Amino acid sequence: MDCGLLNVLVNIGNHFDLKASVFQAPRRGIYSFSFHVVKVYNRQTIQVNLMQNDYPVISAFAGDQDVTREAASNGVLLMVEREDRVYLKLERGTLMGGWKYSTFSGFLVFPL
Amino acid sequence: MDCGLLNVLVNIGNHFDLKASVFQAPRRGIYSFSFHVVKVYNRQTIQVNLMQNDYPVISAFAGDQDVTREAASNGVLLMVEREDRVYLKLERGTLMGGWKYSTFSGFLVFPL
Amino acid sequence: MDCGLLNVLVNIGNHFDLKASVFQAPRRGIYSFSFHVVKVYNRQTIQVNLMQNDYPVISAFAGDQDVTREAASNGVLLMVEREDRVYLKLERGTLMGGWKYSTFSGFLVFPL
Repeated sequence: MDCGLLNVLVNIGNHFDLKASVFQAPRRGIYSFSFHVVKVYNRQTIQVNLMQNDYPVISAFAGDQDVTREAASNGVLLMVEREDRVYLKLERGTLMGGWKYSTFSGFLVFPL
Repeated sequence: MDCGLLNVLVNIGNHFDLKASVFQAPRRGIYSFSFHVVKVYNRQTIQVNLMQNDYPVISAFAGDQDVTREAASNGVLLMVEREDRVYLKLERGTLMGGWKYSTFSGFLVFPL
Repeated sequence: MDCGLLNVLVNIGNHFDLKASVFQAPRRGIYSFSFHVVKVYNRQTIQVNLMQNDYPVISAFAGDQDVTREAASNGVLLMVEREDRVYLKLERGTLMGGWKYSTFSGFLVFPL
């Protein structure tokens, strides 16, 4: 994590540990974050928030009734202070199929 | 904007000013742009174009009838000349709920 | 490609050459890849895999029955060795309308 990279990849299996996927910034700077959270066989609407410390920064939704797999996606550039924590929070709905196929990525665009 | 960053974030409220969100490149280079435009409670299909100067570069669509919130998303690397303008244009449809939850981000990948 | 950039842009026409869009890494490093593959007038579910050499790394899905255009999107940071090949594979379904409006982008975040 010293290089300011976060990459959570959940392609196979069901082992997306939300607690483990908190990004703690090694240094002050502008970071790019993006996520794709996949809802599987689930008629509920989900809302996923990207959180900086304890505040929601951006949200994404997936709410289709008929679809087996659908992603709630968004991305943002964030000004992050050293030791800020950035993570995903499932604000609404449940992920019955787990976090399979979901991704959460971040990297330092430039230091400040 | 000297560092070649664009970040439009519309999580709360309804104040996405399309005119204010024109990115004008401070220098020549390769830039990464991405956007997620969220359609809210709207049965129309929307088409969003990423424009470079007055030309469309990429498009994204959201057209689900049943869904309360759905995003038209895309992203691209662009070779941009100094003072080129890059912006989003709602090519088709309307955003009845405004630009809430929409994002538009860009950064310089490397200078040329 | 010496700078470690990949950008496949298919906005107009139907000429996304999967063979030509294999990214071969010019050097070892962390790369950011993202893709948006658009399904047009097609009731089949599609699954798109991002492949590193011959292994799938991440997947994306589009499966809406009612929608004229819908994207299967995802993105990831990848540790890539020199001469590794990274490309998209249509794992399931067909793209009846071709790859129009689809994008596939990648760039070197930093060298290793």
